[in-house]
Amino acid sequence: MIKITFPDNSVREYEKGITGLQIAESISPRLAQEVLAASVNGETWDLTRPICEDATLQLLKWDDAEGKHAYWHSSAHLMAEALQELYPGIKFGIGPAIENGFYYDVDPGEGVSIKESDFPAIEKKMMELIAAKEEIKRETISKADAIKMFSDRNEQYKVELINELEDGTITTYTQGKFTDLCRGPHLPNTSYIKAVKVLSAAGAYWRGDEKRPQLTRLYGITFPKKKMLDEYLEMIEEAKKRDHRKIGKELELFTFSQTVGAGLPLWLPKGTQLRLKLEEFLKKIQQQFEYEQVITPHIGGKQLYVTSGHYAKYGKDSFQPIHTPEEGEEFLLKPMNCPHHCEIYKAFPRSYKDLPLRLAEFGTVYRYEQSGELHGLTRVRGFTQDDAHIFCMPEQVKDEFLKVMDIIFIIFKALNFKDFEAQISLRDPANKEKYIGSDENWEKAERAIVEACEEKGMKARVELGEAAFYGPKLDFMVKDALGRRWQLGTIQVDYNLPERFELEYTGADNQKHRPVMIHRAPFGSMERFVAVLIEHTAGKFPLWLTPTQVMILPVSEKFNDYAYKVARTLKSHDIRAEVDDRNEKVGRKIRDNELKRIPYLLIVGEKETENEEVSVRKQGGIDQGSEKLTTFANRVKQEVDEMMNPQVNI
Amino acid sequence: MIKITFPDNSVREYEKGITGLQIAESISPRLAQEVLAASVNGETWDLTRPICEDATLQLLKWDDAEGKHAYWHSSAHLMAEALQELYPGIKFGIGPAIENGFYYDVDPGEGVSIKESDFPAIEKKMMELIAAKEEIKRETISKADAIKMFSDRNEQYKVELINELEDGTITTYTQGKFTDLCRGPHLPNTSYIKAVKVLSAAGAYWRGDEKRPQLTRLYGITFPKKKMLDEYLEMIEEAKKRDHRKIGKELELFTFSQTVGAGLPLWLPKGTQLRLKLEEFLKKIQQQFEYEQVITPHIGGKQLYVTSGHYAKYGKDSFQPIHTPEEGEEFLLKPMNCPHHCEIYKAFPRSYKDLPLRLAEFGTVYRYEQSGELHGLTRVRGFTQDDAHIFCMPEQVKDEFLKVMDIIFIIFKALNFKDFEAQISLRDPANKEKYIGSDENWEKAERAIVEACEEKGMKARVELGEAAFYGPKLDFMVKDALGRRWQLGTIQVDYNLPERFELEYTGADNQKHRPVMIHRAPFGSMERFVAVLIEHTAGKFPLWLTPTQVMILPVSEKFNDYAYKVARTLKSHDIRAEVDDRNEKVGRKIRDNELKRIPYLLIVGEKETENEEVSVRKQGGIDQGSEKLTTFANRVKQEVDEMMNPQVNI
Repeated sequence: MIKITFPDNSVREYEKGITGLQIAESISPRLAQEVLAASVNGETWDLTRPICEDATLQLLKWDDAEGKHAYWHSSAHLMAEALQELYPGIKFGIGPAIENGFYYDVDPGEGVSIKESDFPAIEKKMMELIAAKEEIKRETISKADAIKMFSDRNEQYKVELINELEDGTITTYTQGKFTDLCRGPHLPNTSYIKAVKVLSAAGAYWRGDEKRPQLTRLYGITFPKKKMLDEYLEMIEEAKKRDHRKIGKELELFTFSQTVGAGLPLWLPKGTQLRLKLEEFLKKIQQQFEYEQVITPHIGGKQLYVTSGHYAKYGKDSFQPIHTPEEGEEFLLKPMNCPHHCEIYKAFPRSYKDLPLRLAEFGTVYRYEQSGELHGLTRVRGFTQDDAHIFCMPEQVKDEFLKVMDIIFIIFKALNFKDFEAQISLRDPANKEKYIGSDENWEKAERAIVEACEEKGMKARVELGEAAFYGPKLDFMVKDALGRRWQLGTIQVDYNLPERFELEYTGADNQKHRPVMIHRAPFGSMERFVAVLIEHTAGKFPLWLTPTQVMILPVSEKFNDYAYKVARTLKSHDIRAEVDDRNEKVGRKIRDNELKRIPYLLIVGEKETENEEVSVRKQGGIDQGSEKLTTFANRVKQEVDEMMNPQVNI
Repeated sequence: MIKITFPDNSVREYEKGITGLQIAESISPRLAQEVLAASVNGETWDLTRPICEDATLQLLKWDDAEGKHAYWHSSAHLMAEALQELYPGIKFGIGPAIENGFYYDVDPGEGVSIKESDFPAIEKKMMELIAAKEEIKRETISKADAIKMFSDRNEQYKVELINELEDGTITTYTQGKFTDLCRGPHLPNTSYIKAVKVLSAAGAYWRGDEKRPQLTRLYGITFPKKKMLDEYLEMIEEAKKRDHRKIGKELELFTFSQTVGAGLPLWLPKGTQLRLKLEEFLKKIQQQFEYEQVITPHIGGKQLYVTSGHYAKYGKDSFQPIHTPEEGEEFLLKPMNCPHHCEIYKAFPRSYKDLPLRLAEFGTVYRYEQSGELHGLTRVRGFTQDDAHIFCMPEQVKDEFLKVMDIIFIIFKALNFKDFEAQISLRDPANKEKYIGSDENWEKAERAIVEACEEKGMKARVELGEAAFYGPKLDFMVKDALGRRWQLGTIQVDYNLPERFELEYTGADNQKHRPVMIHRAPFGSMERFVAVLIEHTAGKFPLWLTPTQVMILPVSEKFNDYAYKVARTLKSHDIRAEVDDRNEKVGRKIRDNELKRIPYLLIVGEKETENEEVSVRKQGGIDQGSEKLTTFANRVKQEVDEMMNPQVNI
């Protein structure tokens, strides 16, 4: 008999050699249906693998990342098996599970290509193999046997991979006539998979090396229910509609110019309006939290980054140094603002009375990315961080974390991100020597972060070993309207830069001490945040933020004068209003401006002009009837002011 | 007899060979006393040089730049003569008049140095030579004779200069025993000079080449009245006190770091506050004038500047291109924002209905300057222009000039620049071919600028031939509190970039047309403007602009709580208030905060706490007595709001 310890710390005894699936069956038939893999002593195992000694056990389901991972990994094998049947002689590269689904890199052979029109046949074959309920079997195999097996099948890519493995660690998984080199884990059999979809095909160099053969990367996704697949496909369609590059173009928010350069956004007037409003919003909050704005240049002497350590680490892969006609000077485009802020810290002798010193800057930084990696506003070469560096004493870390969390929560609320979670990244307790900073400070900071989350009632996943070498951190992930997760908001302790820049303050004890530095950026970058916001809202920004809040639609040219008067009145109430004075029918004007996601359309004609009124049509086609112009103006102004000036309790 | 035409177009006849001085005497004895040089047919001549044919004549006095120039040029000779008597064997380089006074570069010989303690002796000798009323005589001399004369005297520097001159054009000026190689013009004799001051000594390489000998550059200034010298020296002292580098440090507005780089300012919290307030002020005005803000990156592909023509012209002397790890890409730090704005113009097809399109950006640009040329915030390597580019139709130029002038006047008023003048720079009518753009458009634009100035009642000096090759312009010069002139505010027409970037709009005629581009920057750059503002106000900024508006001084620690309550009340009225809670006597607190140029000091003690009052001490030590806290807060808020929201009539 062996002892199995469950997540709730309860312990049960089972016969040696029992499997995860059998244990699930022993608990409830329903659990046995839902379970996909097992975590045995912290390692993810096949459900059918025998457990032969005492162990901790967690049964993994669809909602567990590792459960889903096994599901999609088996689905990758399933697709490969289908391809093997349909394309004799096809060779396989690698086929992992990814964040959404899986892919397999395949070499269908000279002159053969797999196109979108072939996907239905592949899906059909996958469904057949599912119906066959093929068992998925794990086997341990010697390196020599593995090489022979895959050489015999002309699987050159697999042989290359096996050659790099250590003997004694190699396993294969087999279902039907398909055997793959694989570490697993996998589902017990193919029937677990209920709904399949091959999504797309793309070229991918073998091992990412453009000098090696180009394979076909086939993406797919599967679900345990047909309905889930349908919802997912619908979400994908919706995501395409919400693509920030598409909406950014439609709403004239930003553009790119090949002459200026890829990955270097040009913010158009409406996008600039939106971005500056976000900056203003954050600045107001930060002012209340006693941040001090600074402005620093976009370049810095090379020595600055030699001191910070960034040059040694990233210099070769970055934008290269800028030389001057005068000799001996070299500058770098700044990839981050922290070294400049350290220089500001050093501009004066600092005392403990000056701390915490919170230096904030909307600082535009430049980081080189390969042109192939660039994507809209989410992967760019120049972006503006809503950056701040808090220089404080070690005992102030917790309080500062609490305050930054307050700021982040205010922002999430104002922008309607209701669903978010946090991750605390701590040291690997087994490898303390690879981190900079004293043990005492680390413990203090780690405890501070955990306690800060507790005090805020913020459920946070703790990840050991995920901290940077220079300090622990707290990251926030938000779920957007389509359920996609984005990392927004980060708070990071840093013991490294204060050391490298030799920052000091005089303590109450009249001795010199080293301050702690906290990096934080609630938005992350203005570019990425705006991209997420566009996709989250589908371009229907909150009223206080949206570039054009009100569009006035005169029903004919006769009422243009009154329309302009309405616009002036609204502008004097700080409302961003425009007039659509095109010589078009009012129905056409309504349609066009709805496409522009304007929150309020005001229709003005004879009656409105006579009575100093406006006919209000709210976003979504809601007719709110007529209203006195001044009543409307005051109402909207109040709504905006309340949002722009959130109540802050410090 | 010859005919002399005066500036008022009156004509008088004189005997051939008459001099400017004799003509002045013929008009009035007073004029003869005041006149310093003569402009004969547009060329500046000695007053004693005979006029031998019909000519236009302008008699130049102290208030004419050319009159003052001759005065100081003769003063340089006077100082040289004094030096020759005091330092036998001294050799002379060049000795020009400059904006304020003159200098002479001299080589006093091996082991001899001229120090500040020697200045009184030099001044004394100059006064002796003035008392001798030495005549200053002009002579034409052959190149051979000139070389011989200066070689005999071992004047190697002069010989080097003569060698580069053309025979037949060489003149010397002699007074007493001193003869100088010089083109003139000069005063009739040394007694015109009444008050002298040797100001400073500095090292200067011969011909600015650090490989040539280092000479001693002696600066001096002279005046026709002792009182004028005293006032000037007082102004210099005051200017030293107002030096923006000194005040910038005292008020913690900005700093420099050698590691970040010379000429790259780091804006400290208080300076950032000031600068952002200026930007906010201008943004508000621009919004009313229907400008649209954009944001563009700080780098651009090299091709952008090849297209604009800047690379060919300035590439070699600028910050050098930025290379990337990926091959074939080259970027430049942007030296101006216009090319980026042209790309934004090109992002959409434009119609005449879209014009004028006014794109504004507080755009930070980087221009290489030699490290020796850098000076505080006035000569930097990175600066932020309050830039805008107006794209319009040729017939809209005048209206746009009028509007930009309105903006400039609002700014000058808000910042207390009461004394300013304008200069209109037009084409050289004799050299029309060296300008780009059609004759018709030039005429239209030049007329537009002149008319705009007339309509605004703005007296403007018209300078022919001073226009850039790409368009005419209007510049504003302000006089600061010390009477010094600064160029602030520029409006510039540009026919070149629309051509080079092939900008177009569709006219009402449905044809393609080229827009006109207007560059304008009311502040010029934020850095330079803030420097001028510091020196103009001596750091006593207007209330609406100053970083800390109110400092609260509790008379003892007992009243700190009330002091913080006052601060909170003021902050809730958007007033920037701080508490001086140091454990110091209130007298000390008052003195320290007066040095910080805080507009309002509020003293709070027993009585104030009990009555919710504050004791108000206004800048300049004016005791305004006690006031209810809320009354004070409302009064200050109103004052600030009125200034921040100037009335604009569009």
